[in-house]
Amino acid sequence: MADQLIIFDTTLRDGEQSPGASMTRDEKLRIARQLERLKVDVIEAGFAASSNGDFECVKAIANTIKDSTVCSLARANDRDIARAAEALVGAKRSRIHTFIATSALHMEKKLRMSPDQVFEQAKLSVRFARNLCADIEFSPEDGYRSDPDFLCRVLEAVINEGATTLNIPDTVGYAVPELYGEFIRSLRERVPNSDKAIWSVHCHNDLGMAVANSLAGVKIGGARQVECTINGLGERAGNCSLEEIVMAVKTRRDYFGLDVNIDATQIVPASRMVSQTTGFVVQPNKAVVGANAFAHASGIHQDGVLKARDTYEIMRAEDVGWAANKIVLGKLSGRNAFKARLQELGIEMESEADINTAFARFKDLADRKSEIFDEDIIALASDESVTREQEHYRLVSLRQHSETGERPQASVVFAAGGVEHSAESDGNGPVDASLKAIESQVGSGAELVLYSVNAITSGSTESQGEVTVRLQHGGRVVNGVGADPDIVVASAKAYLAALNKLHSKAERVAAQG
Amino acid sequence: MADQLIIFDTTLRDGEQSPGASMTRDEKLRIARQLERLKVDVIEAGFAASSNGDFECVKAIANTIKDSTVCSLARANDRDIARAAEALVGAKRSRIHTFIATSALHMEKKLRMSPDQVFEQAKLSVRFARNLCADIEFSPEDGYRSDPDFLCRVLEAVINEGATTLNIPDTVGYAVPELYGEFIRSLRERVPNSDKAIWSVHCHNDLGMAVANSLAGVKIGGARQVECTINGLGERAGNCSLEEIVMAVKTRRDYFGLDVNIDATQIVPASRMVSQTTGFVVQPNKAVVGANAFAHASGIHQDGVLKARDTYEIMRAEDVGWAANKIVLGKLSGRNAFKARLQELGIEMESEADINTAFARFKDLADRKSEIFDEDIIALASDESVTREQEHYRLVSLRQHSETGERPQASVVFAAGGVEHSAESDGNGPVDASLKAIESQVGSGAELVLYSVNAITSGSTESQGEVTVRLQHGGRVVNGVGADPDIVVASAKAYLAALNKLHSKAERVAAQG
Repeated sequence: MADQLIIFDTTLRDGEQSPGASMTRDEKLRIARQLERLKVDVIEAGFAASSNGDFECVKAIANTIKDSTVCSLARANDRDIARAAEALVGAKRSRIHTFIATSALHMEKKLRMSPDQVFEQAKLSVRFARNLCADIEFSPEDGYRSDPDFLCRVLEAVINEGATTLNIPDTVGYAVPELYGEFIRSLRERVPNSDKAIWSVHCHNDLGMAVANSLAGVKIGGARQVECTINGLGERAGNCSLEEIVMAVKTRRDYFGLDVNIDATQIVPASRMVSQTTGFVVQPNKAVVGANAFAHASGIHQDGVLKARDTYEIMRAEDVGWAANKIVLGKLSGRNAFKARLQELGIEMESEADINTAFARFKDLADRKSEIFDEDIIALASDESVTREQEHYRLVSLRQHSETGERPQASVVFAAGGVEHSAESDGNGPVDASLKAIESQVGSGAELVLYSVNAITSGSTESQGEVTVRLQHGGRVVNGVGADPDIVVASAKAYLAALNKLHSKAERVAAQG
Repeated sequence: MADQLIIFDTTLRDGEQSPGASMTRDEKLRIARQLERLKVDVIEAGFAASSNGDFECVKAIANTIKDSTVCSLARANDRDIARAAEALVGAKRSRIHTFIATSALHMEKKLRMSPDQVFEQAKLSVRFARNLCADIEFSPEDGYRSDPDFLCRVLEAVINEGATTLNIPDTVGYAVPELYGEFIRSLRERVPNSDKAIWSVHCHNDLGMAVANSLAGVKIGGARQVECTINGLGERAGNCSLEEIVMAVKTRRDYFGLDVNIDATQIVPASRMVSQTTGFVVQPNKAVVGANAFAHASGIHQDGVLKARDTYEIMRAEDVGWAANKIVLGKLSGRNAFKARLQELGIEMESEADINTAFARFKDLADRKSEIFDEDIIALASDESVTREQEHYRLVSLRQHSETGERPQASVVFAAGGVEHSAESDGNGPVDASLKAIESQVGSGAELVLYSVNAITSGSTESQGEVTVRLQHGGRVVNGVGADPDIVVASAKAYLAALNKLHSKAERVAAQG
């Protein structure tokens, strides 16, 4: 039997640290369920000590997920670690992941600690953590830029204290494959008790090499865990992409000789869910999950593909979950069909009342759109859950008008804390006018830093528009997503959803990369 | 002095083969000028023999570009090669790039030729090409999956015939870095006359490793040319990204020890131009050119970055051309200021009359939008040139209205071949209604396969919306881009722009990957 490569997904922790990618508890729970369907080995659910909101997220995921290990990040101090352990109490399998920086630069400039202080703190923290949890991962932050002698000393000590996984991050995305692979190998050779732990890689994509670096850490270095995120979500240029690492190991099994547990047919649904939830688009030329990843334009290629698929394709689209858009439901579909489809899509509603509300929205949508696709249902359910959770602001109605040569006008009625407000404004366009109308009443002072629209389904101008609005205010960045066949209505919904996130008390103090 | 790494950009050839990325002559010329400012060594301008349209593009670029070598692709036959030479006649420095598949799979299934036939054709084609041009590149298509013995035989023969560059493509994106690097090294060791040519790498990103594979080909294999595209544009998951390869070589000069000619401050402007022209979005977490590539969200990172920038950054945003959005012009700006800004942005208008038209549009925009950013000017100029080139359909005016509970309505007036048409329709939303109104008169039968909107500038709800519409009809895929502060108007413009492209006679038979 081949060795197993452990897939550690950190979409909900390192991925969420992308500016604008923060998610609500329900959104994180939905993604965690999809990661479980994807059969990832470990789900890093958050950073419990960073905020009460994140604590609740980790706790909810720990209480829900059965098949994957649930992990919380914690700085190397007792308070963080105790908080992580508390959040993980309900988990079937749990892991505490504690970290402290070990590079000279980070110790001096960020921590303002001496190497000896860092060494002691790492040791004591792992000792403390091990008393609370049997599965302990330790990361020396900025490990790849750390002095190897010092790093070996720290790693040996934390293994002695009971760390079961050692993760060596390339925090700033500076590595190249051969060097990173050799670095991991030399650490494993030099640390005397290295065989007592599983070695892990965590690479960032600043130079476009996160996947290759991770695989060199595995092949050359002997690591057996890869940390990654769906769509490569993460700070700056992001983390190693789960979909790329998994498909590289599967497609080149001849070379890597490793097994992964992943159910690859869940990759594209997971990619779409993360993209829809965070509002981070996936570019068409993204490997595996981009819209063009399996498409061919040129005459020569098309001819080749017709003659023999493998002339230009090394993977099959259906193996990673690409399927032709299916018309699943229409206006004549009943509540049972709708409920069954929700279940097939892995969307769980908390009560029959929630299903009734969602079904009413579905019928409303079906009246306006003849064919309802899976993506429509996901958008509708997603819209639903955001609103349910933090429904301070809610759109009631909207009327807008624009005409060449005249100034566009919009009238918006929305509820704020249950009270209806009417607002009117002109603007550069109907969207601008609608958002200005809302802002004139709310007075949030937030700055719009991103606005984008994607059609949820293709193949018809009847598609719903999915609008993402990113607002920045007082150091916080939030995304709001809204879907509607009317792009102006979708924009107003997205703006209100973002305002709801700003309005909610959840604060975030996020963590390590 | 360090060795030079030759940067061969194929955005206009392999990049353009992405479904939906086809460009007009003026668009290609504008991008070629930007590539020249970026100081790429070689610009692959197209595939002259594939269509009259592509021939004209290559010719126009050959006649315009002075500082970079201009290259045309050609299949390994006399007709293709003669056509490439003809298109390149006006170039200051020219190259013919000829290719034929050498893998057993491609020879048997696609070419239906024996290895001996392929060997002869490769030899004769390079001999023929060398009589027309001193700079000849040869690519064995699907080279990485070819039998090494046969490949060595072909490569030795084409060097003897005068090929000056040998490019070994990983056509299907199957390679991993160590194996690809060793493959190039062994070819160079085994081909007796290998030192008579420069070796080149051409990698695809299907498993997310195009950059790492290319660099392994350089570092381990000894290649001294990399083929790449802006934003990694290209079929399926795309080609090696120019921006990533260049910044990896510059950032890790300690390891690679190579110089590149590239002016990196032109990278972000080039990325935006290619993205705006093709309608292919760049995802926020894309290395180097993504909106988040230099952004930090988490409290810990922000703190680290404030204390010392290099705790989390290995490159500087300003070095790759990221600059704070500058307010460059407003409604009081005059024609001279506008013209000067066009020149600074590298936008060349063909006549004073064109500048006047663009300036009139600028004043119109400035009336509606208080701050005009560089991106607005690029969009405006881009809009301008598309319209000028193929102005069969043109928007005259638009009126639309939507209200909760009622069916959205739109009335559109547009010109088709100089004749005005009025059309009305309802729809699911105002965009749907507007597009349906146009389609009701045009009857193109085209299928809408993509619809997306991005705000051109951030920081204000007054931003223009840039809409991309992708239509598919009769086996052709075209993108139309339209910009306007009113998203519905921008959508109508984009739809008409796409119809213009469908209407134009330019046909495309595209080429090798």
